[in-house]
Amino acid sequence: MGTKGEGNRQRIVDAADNLFYRRGYNQTSFQDISDATGIPRGNFYYYFKTKDEILNAVVNSRVAGLTTILNQCEAETDDARERLLLFSNMLENRRDDVIQSGCPIGSLSSELAKDDTALHEVSRQAFVLLRDWLGLQFENLGLPNADDLAMDLLAKIQGVTVLACAFKDVGFVERSHREIKDWINAKTLN
Amino acid sequence: MGTKGEGNRQRIVDAADNLFYRRGYNQTSFQDISDATGIPRGNFYYYFKTKDEILNAVVNSRVAGLTTILNQCEAETDDARERLLLFSNMLENRRDDVIQSGCPIGSLSSELAKDDTALHEVSRQAFVLLRDWLGLQFENLGLPNADDLAMDLLAKIQGVTVLACAFKDVGFVERSHREIKDWINAKTLN
Repeated sequence: MGTKGEGNRQRIVDAADNLFYRRGYNQTSFQDISDATGIPRGNFYYYFKTKDEILNAVVNSRVAGLTTILNQCEAETDDARERLLLFSNMLENRRDDVIQSGCPIGSLSSELAKDDTALHEVSRQAFVLLRDWLGLQFENLGLPNADDLAMDLLAKIQGVTVLACAFKDVGFVERSHREIKDWINAKTLN
Repeated sequence: MGTKGEGNRQRIVDAADNLFYRRGYNQTSFQDISDATGIPRGNFYYYFKTKDEILNAVVNSRVAGLTTILNQCEAETDDARERLLLFSNMLENRRDDVIQSGCPIGSLSSELAKDDTALHEVSRQAFVLLRDWLGLQFENLGLPNADDLAMDLLAKIQGVTVLACAFKDVGFVERSHREIKDWINAKTLN
């Protein structure tokens, strides 16, 4: 694929990513993505034959974006506890998005649990990445139940996003973020 | 409305409730509800003019169902701490549903946050009921931050359902339920 083709492909993925987040996967049509990109629907088929293929590309793109964020946490400090705290900042860094539309990973997973097993498994990939990375940090701190702690931290963050979005409550995000940091410290400080 | 009309109306609401939970609100059509009930689509308009009206009826029905559960908790014990523990059992009582389709309240709220402010507010009503009731229990135990604790407990349960559904993990529900009961006891036992 040439540079222009690659550029078009990326524009489709970026627009779909945003629409899946803001409107939901099922509520996004090829036409919506065409309207958002200005790329005619007919040209889509050169890049993606089905909406499932676009979903795959969007999840891959989210996994890549999260990998960048995790790499930044790793570059910033060698201390696994500090890395966990940096990771938890995502909740507040994306606060306005969370209030408006929830968590992109959690809400996609919840939506796709409803209908299609194959699509649901695709959507899980971003959670798998985070679970593994968080588990590794807890493991590096010598904690025996590292994977449980990774699941607990993910569940805490998901719970906060669902309630913050339901009640449009900025203060709840801020308070919960403080309590999540306290929890990370309590679990990891000797 | 006569008895038959009331019966038909209730059948529509029950079928829609189940379909909204299993497939999602946006993925459920009038035709799906007609197929599930055997009531012809044309007859629907006698009971409901729009899908929004069905959503309203479904949320009212869920609020009524939850009110029954909360009343049962109240009937079973006068001890507010015991009531909170009984409430938390819902997570495990509905474990198989949670694994398959998430939380009916949380997933509807997350779905409707995506598009329509008015519908999102309707979907919030079940959360409001639970928040108020949980807050009242914490208040009865003399805790000053009762509403914060109610939000925290709801967020914990939501987080567990999102992750348990994403990973289809029964063991995670069981472990998390134990930890939620420990948390309730830690917050409420003097």
